[in-house]
Amino acid sequence: MERITYLGIGIMGSGMATNLLKAGYPVTVWNRNPESCQPLVEKGATQAQTPAQAVENAEAIMYCLANDNAVEEVVFGQNGILSNVKSGQIAIDMSTVHPDTSRREAAAYAEKQVEFLDAPVFGSKNESATGGLWIVVGGKRDVFERVKPILEPLSETVHYLGDTGKGASMKLVGNSIVATQIEALGEALILATKAGLNPKDVLDVLHVVDFRSPIFDGVGNMLVNRDFTPHFALKNLLKDANLIARFAQDLNSPTPAAAIVRETIKVAVNQGWGEENASALIKALELEAGVTVESSVKAF
Amino acid sequence: MERITYLGIGIMGSGMATNLLKAGYPVTVWNRNPESCQPLVEKGATQAQTPAQAVENAEAIMYCLANDNAVEEVVFGQNGILSNVKSGQIAIDMSTVHPDTSRREAAAYAEKQVEFLDAPVFGSKNESATGGLWIVVGGKRDVFERVKPILEPLSETVHYLGDTGKGASMKLVGNSIVATQIEALGEALILATKAGLNPKDVLDVLHVVDFRSPIFDGVGNMLVNRDFTPHFALKNLLKDANLIARFAQDLNSPTPAAAIVRETIKVAVNQGWGEENASALIKALELEAGVTVESSVKAF
Amino acid sequence: MERITYLGIGIMGSGMATNLLKAGYPVTVWNRNPESCQPLVEKGATQAQTPAQAVENAEAIMYCLANDNAVEEVVFGQNGILSNVKSGQIAIDMSTVHPDTSRREAAAYAEKQVEFLDAPVFGSKNESATGGLWIVVGGKRDVFERVKPILEPLSETVHYLGDTGKGASMKLVGNSIVATQIEALGEALILATKAGLNPKDVLDVLHVVDFRSPIFDGVGNMLVNRDFTPHFALKNLLKDANLIARFAQDLNSPTPAAAIVRETIKVAVNQGWGEENASALIKALELEAGVTVESSVKAF
Amino acid sequence: MERITYLGIGIMGSGMATNLLKAGYPVTVWNRNPESCQPLVEKGATQAQTPAQAVENAEAIMYCLANDNAVEEVVFGQNGILSNVKSGQIAIDMSTVHPDTSRREAAAYAEKQVEFLDAPVFGSKNESATGGLWIVVGGKRDVFERVKPILEPLSETVHYLGDTGKGASMKLVGNSIVATQIEALGEALILATKAGLNPKDVLDVLHVVDFRSPIFDGVGNMLVNRDFTPHFALKNLLKDANLIARFAQDLNSPTPAAAIVRETIKVAVNQGWGEENASALIKALELEAGVTVESSVKAF
Repeated sequence: MERITYLGIGIMGSGMATNLLKAGYPVTVWNRNPESCQPLVEKGATQAQTPAQAVENAEAIMYCLANDNAVEEVVFGQNGILSNVKSGQIAIDMSTVHPDTSRREAAAYAEKQVEFLDAPVFGSKNESATGGLWIVVGGKRDVFERVKPILEPLSETVHYLGDTGKGASMKLVGNSIVATQIEALGEALILATKAGLNPKDVLDVLHVVDFRSPIFDGVGNMLVNRDFTPHFALKNLLKDANLIARFAQDLNSPTPAAAIVRETIKVAVNQGWGEENASALIKALELEAGVTVESSVKAF
Repeated sequence: MERITYLGIGIMGSGMATNLLKAGYPVTVWNRNPESCQPLVEKGATQAQTPAQAVENAEAIMYCLANDNAVEEVVFGQNGILSNVKSGQIAIDMSTVHPDTSRREAAAYAEKQVEFLDAPVFGSKNESATGGLWIVVGGKRDVFERVKPILEPLSETVHYLGDTGKGASMKLVGNSIVATQIEALGEALILATKAGLNPKDVLDVLHVVDFRSPIFDGVGNMLVNRDFTPHFALKNLLKDANLIARFAQDLNSPTPAAAIVRETIKVAVNQGWGEENASALIKALELEAGVTVESSVKAF
Repeated sequence: MERITYLGIGIMGSGMATNLLKAGYPVTVWNRNPESCQPLVEKGATQAQTPAQAVENAEAIMYCLANDNAVEEVVFGQNGILSNVKSGQIAIDMSTVHPDTSRREAAAYAEKQVEFLDAPVFGSKNESATGGLWIVVGGKRDVFERVKPILEPLSETVHYLGDTGKGASMKLVGNSIVATQIEALGEALILATKAGLNPKDVLDVLHVVDFRSPIFDGVGNMLVNRDFTPHFALKNLLKDANLIARFAQDLNSPTPAAAIVRETIKVAVNQGWGEENASALIKALELEAGVTVESSVKAF
Repeated sequence: MERITYLGIGIMGSGMATNLLKAGYPVTVWNRNPESCQPLVEKGATQAQTPAQAVENAEAIMYCLANDNAVEEVVFGQNGILSNVKSGQIAIDMSTVHPDTSRREAAAYAEKQVEFLDAPVFGSKNESATGGLWIVVGGKRDVFERVKPILEPLSETVHYLGDTGKGASMKLVGNSIVATQIEALGEALILATKAGLNPKDVLDVLHVVDFRSPIFDGVGNMLVNRDFTPHFALKNLLKDANLIARFAQDLNSPTPAAAIVRETIKVAVNQGWGEENASALIKALELEAGVTVESSVKAF
C-alpha cells in the first residue's frame, strides 16, 4: 500500500492525514473548502480539486465526512469518488454514518471491483492528532488485513468486527453510551452542587471508584472550569443521537435512557450551544435545575 | 485508636472487620444474626450480644447496615448503640443512608459527647475483602484525622468532603451514576446484538475507548457469561435508586436519566431477580427487547 | 347527620364549607390562619380556636388539609382532632394524602370508637365553589351510606371504592394521569408552534377529536392567553407527583411517563413558578424548546 | 364536484368510499390488493386496475394509504397517480404522512396544474364507517372551499389549518397525544391494580372527572375485557410514533414524554402484538409490572 488519498480535512481528517504523511506515505488530499488543505500541502501532501481527481492513482481512498449527506455527495455525487474509481482500489469510510449507508457504498463500489471497508473511529481532536484513535472495522477480513498497516499510524487499537456495516454499527453502539455518560455526570454534579458538595471533590472521587471513566475526568474538568471549547461539538452529539435513534428504530430496540438523553441534547442545542463542546449538554441540565456547577466551586 | 467495635457483619462488614483484625486491632463484633460473626471470632474477634454491649469500652464504633431502617434500630433502638455510648467515643456510620439520617445520628451522638462521622464506601464484595474500598467521609475534619489510620487498612482511598452528611451525600451522588452506566451498557449491548455484532467484541472495544469504565468490563463479562451471582444485589440497587430519588426530590434536582433507569430496575425486580447481581437490570432490557445478549455470542 | 365540623379552610375547604351551610347544616369551622374563616362566619358558621375545640359535639368531622404533614399535625398533634373525639363521631379526610396516612388515621380513630372515611376529591377551585366535585371514598360501606347525604351538596358524583385507603389510592391513581396530560398537551402545542400551526386552531381540533378532554380546553385556553392564575398551584402538582412517586415505589409499579413528567415539574418549580397555575409546567417545556406557544398566535 | 376517485381501500378508505357512494357521488376505486374493492363495486363503485387508470376523468382524487412509502409508490411510482393527472384535477391525500411528503406531493402536482390538499383524518374504524371523522386540512383556502362538500359526508368536523403540510402537521401533533394518553391510562390502571382497586371502578371515576377523555372509556373498557381486536393496530401506533419522533427531530422540539412512550410501544411490538389493537401497549406495561389489570377485576 503506497499511495493514499484522504478526503475530508476537518478536525479529524487533518490529524489522520498528517499522521499518514509522518509515516512516510505519499498523500493526496481534498476538502470541500480547499483552504483547510493548506497545512497538509505544506507538509508534503498533494491537493486535488475534486473527489474524482483525488482518487486517480490512489491505492487506498480514505475519508472522514460530516454525515450521511456529505457521504452521499462526495461518494455518489457529481465528480464524486465513484465517478473515477478503478478496479483494485480500496475505499475506507471513516465517517460516523448509518450502517445502511455503508452497505450502499459497498454495493456501489463492488460494481466497480473496488473493495470497501467501513472504519469509523472513536476519539476526537486529540486522539486524531496524536495517532491515538480506536478504529472499528467492517468488511472482508482479507481486505482488512491488507489495509491494517495504514490504519496503525492513526490509532491505538484497530478492531475487526465482521462484514460490511459492522464497523458503522459498532460506532453507533459505542456512541449510544457517550451521551448517557455525560448526562449521568451532569445529573450527579448538579445533585452534588445542590447538596453543598464541592464539584472538584466529587470529580476527585469519581476519578478513583470502580465506575470511573476517562470521560468523567475530561468532561468534568472542563465543566468546573467552564471551558466549552469544542473537541467534539454538541451539534455533532445531537447528530449522532439522531442517528442512533434511527438505528434503534430500524432494529426496534428499546433504549429508554438514550432516548431521554437525546431530549436533553435538543434542549441544549435550542439554547444556541450547538457549536460548543458536547459537554454543554450539562448546561441544559443546569438551566433546568436553576444552579450552575461552577457556583459552588471553592477551596475548603 | 486501639479498641474497635464493628456492627453489621454482612458481605461488606465481614470484609472490613477481617481487615481490621489483620491490621492488629482488637475488634468486638455484633450482628443481628449472630452466626455471621463466627468466622471473625475464629480470627480473634470478641462477639457481643447486643449493640449496647458491643460498644462498651470501644474507642471507635463502626457499622455498615442494610438501610436507614436498620440504622434506626441498631443506633436508636432498644439496646441500641446510643443507649450505652460514653463521652469521647467516635461513631462511624459506613452504611449507605440518606444524609438526613447522618445528621440525625450526629445530633443524637453530640448530646452524649460522642463524635460522629458518616463514612460510606464505594466498592462491593471484592474491594471489601481486599481492603480496596473507596471511603468518603463527612464530619469534623479533626475527628476525621484521628480515625484516618483505622480507615486505611480497609481502603484504597479516603476522601474527606466536609461537614456531617457530606459523605452520605457523595455516596448517593456517585451511585446515581452506577445504575445509569449499567443501563447504558445494557441498551448498547442489546442494540449490538440486534445489529448482529458479537457482544464479546463490543466489550473488547468498550475496554479501550475513552469512555471505558471498569464497570463495563465487570458487568459486561458477567452478562455474556450469564453469571448473575450477587456482588451487589439488584434489590440493593433498587434501594439505592429509591434513596437517590428521594434525595433528588428533597433538593428538587431534575435527574431524568436516573429517574427512567429507576423504572427499569423496578421492572427487573418485578420479574423476581432482586437477589441476583445488579447486572440483572440488563435482563429487564432483554425482556423488553425480545433478545438475549448471550444468544449471539460466538467465535468468528 | 346534623352538626358538621370542617377543618382546613383553604381554596377547597371554603367552597365545601359554604355549600354545607347553603344546604342548611350547622357548621363549625377551624383554620390554622383564623382569618380565612371570617367569610364563613358571616354566612353563619361557628368558628373554633383549635381542632380539639372544633370537633366537640360534631357528628361529622370533615377536613381538607394541604398534605400529609398537615394531617399529622391537625389530627395527631397537640390540641388535635384525636385529643377530643368521642365514640360515635365520623371523621372524613378529604385531603390528598398517601393511603398509609389514611390507614394510620383509621386505626387511631378506631381506638376511640370513631369511624373514618378517606374521601379525597377531584376538581379544583371552581368545582369546590359550585358543588361539582367528584368524591372518591374508602372505608366501611355502611359508614359511607350514612355520610352520603352530606357529600351530595359538595359533589357531582360520589364513588365508593372499598375499604380504608381506597379513596386515597384512587386520588393518586387519577392524579397520575393529570400531569401527564398537561405534559402531552404542552409537547403537542410546542411542536405545533414550531411547525407553524396556530395554537388556537390546534385547540379547536383537540376540542373535538376522540381523545379530547376538558383538561385540554381549560389548560390550553389559559396557556394561549398566558393566564397562569392558580386554580391548582404548580407546587401542589409537584407535591402530588412526589406522593405518586412514593406510592408507585411502595408498590414497585413502573410508571415511566409519570416519572419523566415529574422531572419536568421540578424544572418548572426551579424557575420560580410554584405559586402559578399547574399549567406553568408547559412554560418549562417552552424554555427547553426555545419557543413560546403564544408567540405564534395570530389570526389567519 | 361530481366524479371522485378513491385509492387505498383499507379499514379507513373503505368506510370513506362507502360514504361517498351513499352521498350519491360516482366513485372509482383502486386498491393494491384488488379484492378489497369488491364490496364497493357491489355498492356501485367502478374498479380501476392501476392508480393511473383510476384517476382518468376524476375531478377529485382522494387517497388514504398506509405510510410514506405507499404514497411514494402510488403517487410517484410507475403507473402512479402523477403519470396520468390532468390540469384542473384536485388531489387530496388523507394518509398520515410526514409534512415533507405533503409538500413534495404539492410541488409535483403543481407542475401538472393539479391542485393538492393534505387532509388526514382523526378517528379510526368506527368513525370512518359512520362518517364521523375529524378532518384537518392544509393547502390553498379556495381549493379547500371547493372540496369541502365532498369531505362533509365523511366527517363530523373539517378544520382548515393553513398552507400545504399544515394538515399533516396537525395530524402528527394530535397523535403525539394519543399514545401518551394510552400510556398514562395503563400506568394508572396498573398502579390501581397493585393498590387493590377494582379497575372497573377506576374507569367509572375516570369517566366523570375533569380530565376524562373518550379514549379512556374506549381503551379502558377493551382492556378490562381483554379485547385487543384492532380498530387501530399497535404497529400503526408505532409507525406514527416513529413519524412523530422524526418530525420532532426535524424541528428539534423536545418531547420527553412522547419519546419515553415510543420506547414502551417498541416493547409491546417486540412481544409480537403489532397486529393487535393499539391498547396492547398496556400489555407491555403489565409485563413490566408483573401484574395484569384483568386479574383483579371482581365484583365487590
